[in-house]
Amino acid sequence: MLEALRIGMLGFGTVGRGVADLLLNHPDLLANRAGIPLRLVRIATRNPERDRGLALGSVEVTGNVHRVVDATDLDVVVELIGGIIPTRDLVHRALESGKHVITANKALIAEYGPDLFALAHSKGVQLGIEAAVAGAVPIIKTLRESLAGNRIDSVYGILNGTCNYILTEMRAKGLPFARVLADAQAKGFAEADPSFDIDGIDAAHKLAILSAIAFGTPLDYGRILKEGIRHVSETDIAWANEMGYRIKLLAMSRLREGLMEMTVRPVMVPVGSMVAAVEGVFNAVFVHGDYAGTTMYHGRGAGERPTASAVVADLMDLARDLRAGAKERVPSLSVPVHHLRTLPIQSAAQRQGSFYIRMAVVDRPGVLAEITAILARHAISIDAIHQKGRSPVEAVPLVMVTHESTEERITQALIEIEQLDSVREPPRSIRIEAGLA
Amino acid sequence: MLEALRIGMLGFGTVGRGVADLLLNHPDLLANRAGIPLRLVRIATRNPERDRGLALGSVEVTGNVHRVVDATDLDVVVELIGGIIPTRDLVHRALESGKHVITANKALIAEYGPDLFALAHSKGVQLGIEAAVAGAVPIIKTLRESLAGNRIDSVYGILNGTCNYILTEMRAKGLPFARVLADAQAKGFAEADPSFDIDGIDAAHKLAILSAIAFGTPLDYGRILKEGIRHVSETDIAWANEMGYRIKLLAMSRLREGLMEMTVRPVMVPVGSMVAAVEGVFNAVFVHGDYAGTTMYHGRGAGERPTASAVVADLMDLARDLRAGAKERVPSLSVPVHHLRTLPIQSAAQRQGSFYIRMAVVDRPGVLAEITAILARHAISIDAIHQKGRSPVEAVPLVMVTHESTEERITQALIEIEQLDSVREPPRSIRIEAGLA
Repeated sequence: MLEALRIGMLGFGTVGRGVADLLLNHPDLLANRAGIPLRLVRIATRNPERDRGLALGSVEVTGNVHRVVDATDLDVVVELIGGIIPTRDLVHRALESGKHVITANKALIAEYGPDLFALAHSKGVQLGIEAAVAGAVPIIKTLRESLAGNRIDSVYGILNGTCNYILTEMRAKGLPFARVLADAQAKGFAEADPSFDIDGIDAAHKLAILSAIAFGTPLDYGRILKEGIRHVSETDIAWANEMGYRIKLLAMSRLREGLMEMTVRPVMVPVGSMVAAVEGVFNAVFVHGDYAGTTMYHGRGAGERPTASAVVADLMDLARDLRAGAKERVPSLSVPVHHLRTLPIQSAAQRQGSFYIRMAVVDRPGVLAEITAILARHAISIDAIHQKGRSPVEAVPLVMVTHESTEERITQALIEIEQLDSVREPPRSIRIEAGLA
Repeated sequence: MLEALRIGMLGFGTVGRGVADLLLNHPDLLANRAGIPLRLVRIATRNPERDRGLALGSVEVTGNVHRVVDATDLDVVVELIGGIIPTRDLVHRALESGKHVITANKALIAEYGPDLFALAHSKGVQLGIEAAVAGAVPIIKTLRESLAGNRIDSVYGILNGTCNYILTEMRAKGLPFARVLADAQAKGFAEADPSFDIDGIDAAHKLAILSAIAFGTPLDYGRILKEGIRHVSETDIAWANEMGYRIKLLAMSRLREGLMEMTVRPVMVPVGSMVAAVEGVFNAVFVHGDYAGTTMYHGRGAGERPTASAVVADLMDLARDLRAGAKERVPSLSVPVHHLRTLPIQSAAQRQGSFYIRMAVVDRPGVLAEITAILARHAISIDAIHQKGRSPVEAVPLVMVTHESTEERITQALIEIEQLDSVREPPRSIRIEAGLA
């Protein structure tokens, strides 16, 4: 039997510091719960000399990643470098050498997960990914284990704290996107290059992982329809508010009549819904299973300590497995790889819903007739129409809410509407999700 | 290696039906995820002849509990009879014979858990209890595994759907307790004898289990301070509303400076808090850990299918453990029994907080002076005072909110106030919890 779980770490930035801090702070607590001590042996970092304000004791800090990746005195490598290069190779080598790997790297898993899981399986080691999705919120284990009796038909939520913070602030303060983004960058809630977050890439990485586990499908990040929040204006937010909605960047995977819908995009949700109540930097995941019904999981989706909590959850699982003699107790994607099956994706013609549409139109007779004629030709019926302000010279906003339609029809109609002389900006549409928890 | 997990069931009521239904509905899904089939072999029930509307196939239904408890062809016994007698003996015998046991019986675990866990440990078998707390919400596994890296300092939430439904309805419809209770009984949300629910006993059973796991203390149901919702009046609810609060039956265990506070009672929580947003029959548990921060878990706390989801989660865990060769991977109370340690409980003199106090007083000069003199003598200072209506003959309501005080002082002061001639009913107090998530 193992005497201790010997841990090597790649990367000693924010999350790395949190993991080291936790392991050094709680040795007895962890050992009592795991049955064996968790021993942090070595950390590889580009800046081995930097003082992180931790009493590292006998922990070796090295500038040489190979002292971790190729080590023979470690049981597990915790990868907290992030990104694909050189991380992918390092994780590959660590697995190849028979070490378990735990990572918070959603991009790596979303894009190269299939190869890495297959390699881990062939080597009989674990590849732990709890920290890759929703920080401290234990959604990976919940999907794989706690909801294992359920056929899951939807998993959705707020998976990017930066976007949720920006949208929350835009609404609370009535400020435009660019201003709030700059403010978020100044506060450290958004990266200098924010595109991973605000274009929905980060949320889509996480959704790809959740979908695969929930539905037993191969990881397939490329099939997710992504739209970020750059085009959400303060006008849209004000209109949403007036109509009893909040705009959220919603990541959603949903199975309907055998077809998958996998989308990351801004949607309107009713003010009284629980999704709408997820504010600021928080993350929340909602899962609907055929027996459990809807369950919801909420907490901090990022940051030094919450992410460390998730990394250490995987370390504790591993320590308990090794102590108890368990091998591959739970498959990484819930079922063994040969049971994964691809499900067809809904086309835009199959994606149904009602939509908010905002246009800037010249305020003159006949405009509304032109627009509604186009909508009618595409069999789109209107639930509500709002026009505010009058101006003989400037464009005025015209807002409509449609009845149930297909996304394809909406897109086609908006292309035609954009051609009209009286329409001054590209019309914007936002899906309304009225039926969420 | 095991070829299948062979399951026997005790009890075939609502939850039993749900478990059988799930196992019979999802054989392939479960087998793919667990690595071995989950086979329902036998069900013991008092009414073996009754038609439950299930295609039971080869499942044996018997009137003889010993065909399950003493069977040698079963790996695990699922106990869904409830209550203590004869359940305690049956569970004891099943464990004694070397079978694993999974139960949804919170009363049994809260009151006899220590013996049963010790017996299970001595026999090298599991005693699964996920379904005993908060139905489909996977809080047991989350505390034991997902938050295993955290020192937990509070766990609290809404653990009794019946009480939460009653309080939600009282507020929404402005109706008195007795009327809403009768309505809940008619709808099947409350038992004919509702005392287990409305006196806080059921919530306290669940809190005892959560506390033990969260804090590594021995199970000790007797130390929980319990107060039910019988005395919550529609007047209190209206006042709470007016002051920006909701009244909730809150189950809370909190560690402060080495002292435990374990209470189940109606409290006022701010309208904007997440606790306040838990409505109707839903359950929610909030956990604060030193690294994860506050995480929250929300879902259906009872019912045929949600409880079945939790029972099957334990069955899946067991199947995966057995298939993977793991023995006692995770201790039942998070740490081995010899690591459990009792923590001292806060006395009423140590429990600090602010309080809502409601009195019925005769509206004449000097009354307020008498009351405030008593409060001053007990060093209780007043944050706000409200009086509504005037009447020369009838008592009028007088409502106060105190600053931080101790519960002992409040109790003493209210005893003295009750003696006053001008005070017509026993004064009522409700703790205000303003700092919750």
